[in-house]
Amino acid sequence: MKVLNVRDYVVDKLQYALNPKSIAVVGASRYNTKFGYKVIEELRAWGYKGEIYPVNPRADEVHGLKAYPTVKDIPAEIDLVFIAVPAHIVKSVLEDCVAKQVKIVVIATSAFKEIGRGQLQNELTQYCRDNKLPLIGPNLVGMGSPYLNFNCGFIPYLPIKGPVAMISQSGANLLAALGTSQKDHFGMSFFVGLGNKADVDFSEFVAYAGIDDNTKCLAIYIEGLDSEEAFVKACQKVDKPIVTIKVGGSKIGVKAAFAHTASENEGTNDAYYDEIFQKAGAIRATTWQQFLDVSLALGMQPPLYDDKIVMITNGGGSGLLSCDHFERCGLPLHELKEISPSLAERIRAYMPMFGSPLNPVDISGTASPIHYKGAFRQAMRDPNVNGILGSICPTAVTDVEAVTDVVIEIHEAFKHLHKPFVMECQGGEECQRAIMKLRDHGIPAYPTAEQAVNAMVALYRYGQIKKNKQVK
Amino acid sequence: MKVLNVRDYVVDKLQYALNPKSIAVVGASRYNTKFGYKVIEELRAWGYKGEIYPVNPRADEVHGLKAYPTVKDIPAEIDLVFIAVPAHIVKSVLEDCVAKQVKIVVIATSAFKEIGRGQLQNELTQYCRDNKLPLIGPNLVGMGSPYLNFNCGFIPYLPIKGPVAMISQSGANLLAALGTSQKDHFGMSFFVGLGNKADVDFSEFVAYAGIDDNTKCLAIYIEGLDSEEAFVKACQKVDKPIVTIKVGGSKIGVKAAFAHTASENEGTNDAYYDEIFQKAGAIRATTWQQFLDVSLALGMQPPLYDDKIVMITNGGGSGLLSCDHFERCGLPLHELKEISPSLAERIRAYMPMFGSPLNPVDISGTASPIHYKGAFRQAMRDPNVNGILGSICPTAVTDVEAVTDVVIEIHEAFKHLHKPFVMECQGGEECQRAIMKLRDHGIPAYPTAEQAVNAMVALYRYGQIKKNKQVK
Repeated sequence: MKVLNVRDYVVDKLQYALNPKSIAVVGASRYNTKFGYKVIEELRAWGYKGEIYPVNPRADEVHGLKAYPTVKDIPAEIDLVFIAVPAHIVKSVLEDCVAKQVKIVVIATSAFKEIGRGQLQNELTQYCRDNKLPLIGPNLVGMGSPYLNFNCGFIPYLPIKGPVAMISQSGANLLAALGTSQKDHFGMSFFVGLGNKADVDFSEFVAYAGIDDNTKCLAIYIEGLDSEEAFVKACQKVDKPIVTIKVGGSKIGVKAAFAHTASENEGTNDAYYDEIFQKAGAIRATTWQQFLDVSLALGMQPPLYDDKIVMITNGGGSGLLSCDHFERCGLPLHELKEISPSLAERIRAYMPMFGSPLNPVDISGTASPIHYKGAFRQAMRDPNVNGILGSICPTAVTDVEAVTDVVIEIHEAFKHLHKPFVMECQGGEECQRAIMKLRDHGIPAYPTAEQAVNAMVALYRYGQIKKNKQVK
Repeated sequence: MKVLNVRDYVVDKLQYALNPKSIAVVGASRYNTKFGYKVIEELRAWGYKGEIYPVNPRADEVHGLKAYPTVKDIPAEIDLVFIAVPAHIVKSVLEDCVAKQVKIVVIATSAFKEIGRGQLQNELTQYCRDNKLPLIGPNLVGMGSPYLNFNCGFIPYLPIKGPVAMISQSGANLLAALGTSQKDHFGMSFFVGLGNKADVDFSEFVAYAGIDDNTKCLAIYIEGLDSEEAFVKACQKVDKPIVTIKVGGSKIGVKAAFAHTASENEGTNDAYYDEIFQKAGAIRATTWQQFLDVSLALGMQPPLYDDKIVMITNGGGSGLLSCDHFERCGLPLHELKEISPSLAERIRAYMPMFGSPLNPVDISGTASPIHYKGAFRQAMRDPNVNGILGSICPTAVTDVEAVTDVVIEIHEAFKHLHKPFVMECQGGEECQRAIMKLRDHGIPAYPTAEQAVNAMVALYRYGQIKKNKQVK
């Protein structure tokens, strides 16, 4: 249901969804294939430190914990109630929650508006709003934070710690991001599924992420906004980069988005959302990969305020893929001599005779860690250079590990200059290891040229957004 | 240098570059950091079975093998001479090769036309052409084939066996593909770097790949074509899918492509190459990732002749990313009831009440291997369905491994119907394992929705190309 503005009581209480001291799981099951069992299993497996109260009128014990017939029967204060019972029982559970004065409820249950039960969903929402009980969901997968070892939902992964708050309407895509987090070291501050977002709105999680210390970038997957104004206002107030991806815009996607999260997209199109995101100062990604890649870069690196980017690579081919893609993205590279007349000559010292001091700078397949270090240092120290894109293409003589360490050293040494530094490392397992190590040290790194370019372009776009905000 | 037509003597002799019985390595070094040492090291490490003759006038032995002062001194027939000596010595080596009647030469050495020595390069080329000695290179990284355990060049990887012939002007990008091959099970038939392609042209490798039994798809990375007509004619004659990626089209890329492989792009643009590739019946990829993804699909699956694609997923979000991307690619999905009025009802048996029998078919996050099997089987057996895109999004109850086995079983059981089958599996390590296993069984599988869609769209494009060819 629509909200006109971010509601303070909701934002205040979101901490109880992401950092609760006590959780009641309604629909806690004794059977280990059931969701109601999995929730408790995951909470414990990932190391949740608070109290867990299973609620199940037909069980004395669930997962070794004493079970209670209703929320009201629990002899302690409850921050969060996680509801995983059939739709028709939810109302009575909410009444218990209000009576018990719980802080916030999450309804994981499906089969509400997305299958035509909009009225039931609206009634529950209105009931919660009347009682100032924030409701997250229904039809969602869960939430958590790696900083708190908190994994609450039907979620097989906990992400690694990092800068990105992932706010997703889709459960499946949220889970994909969490899986990717571990596999590719994509670090998150917290994550939450919104599902049908009957009550708590995107805008309120935006406001919460804006004040969350661990969050450096917001990544928002949207199937439909029904409170556009509140979203725009909330985004405008946040001084952190915001990346969005909006699906359900295709002809057939309109139906699928409704069937999935009851999102309404009739009468909207891509241009409509482009305008919303522009007003909001959010960067819109097109593909899922771009969504992740760009979020990570914006979470790790400062904005790029001007477009004098130097690319340094040991592979001419990766340089070409990159400079073509920069132009395709509307941010063509400048020639090295235009950026800094003397830099080409200074960089020449770190390449063989057949290397190429153009931009991209090709220090050639023979480049050693010393060559890389010299070239990066020259580019970093040059005041005319705004940002650096580095690339490692393993040849038979490339010491990928040593070059990775050089990159980390240079990044650390010149951090105070606030020059965005993005890396690409294309190839086999050793590149994957390099990418993970670089990411662990705050350097966004990617396995293909175009991904790295997308990341740098996003840093530039965010620089432009920041500038525009200052002018206003 | 330009060729007007594929030269038969060149195509005949390419087998000696990709399957030589004997190799002389000129510039074989005793020092293990040198390229000339690495070449022999890699040949032996990967299990080359033929004879290796190091050529080095200042050594008696290299890598435990007897060394010879010149090619002429080798007391045996030589198929391939691999040259890794400085540019100014190359001419005399070529004279020895002609005298020795070797079958083919590869010049790995850089510093020819790409740094302004076009005349020297042309002289060498003309000399080879006059003597019908095919020359591959100069300025290249090497070649090989996993089917022969043959890895000849400055190449730290051998790819896994598979359907794609990788023909690349860039060494670095070729190496990236080879690294990816092992890491992500991207299978290749053979691979070759062309570098400056002074003599042997793309068109001649196209003709060779056309008759190579292991090759099911050609993947060609181009920095510049100087023999467009020969290329188009060669491609038209090949009854296999051809995927191209062309770089150096950006303003700054024109210079970088010349500096890299002496490719001339002045006066050409993207539209110019679009027309060439269209005439050639080749599918052009935009990004490197797309280049790999699409090549693999075309190498593994039959063409898609009509556009009735059904997507089956347990994640509504991945379905939405996919259907939006299908529309973005100009191939919008049709509604399920339009494709087959009864399929929706038959598929409903394999999903819970809140699943969605639209297209994408959302069998929901609770889907078991049995649900997947039933849904896939219904879609496969329906004569109105032309192709199937499957997707696995791990939830807390998804058995990814078992679903993977179901996919392999269904693919095998219905292979005779020639329906393209593409998979997406988004998430963590278990998804990466699933993707590799699926690829090992001939099913193109990808970690994001858009990659899988790109693959399916390419199968459709190739279907259209095949149809157009038949009409002519």
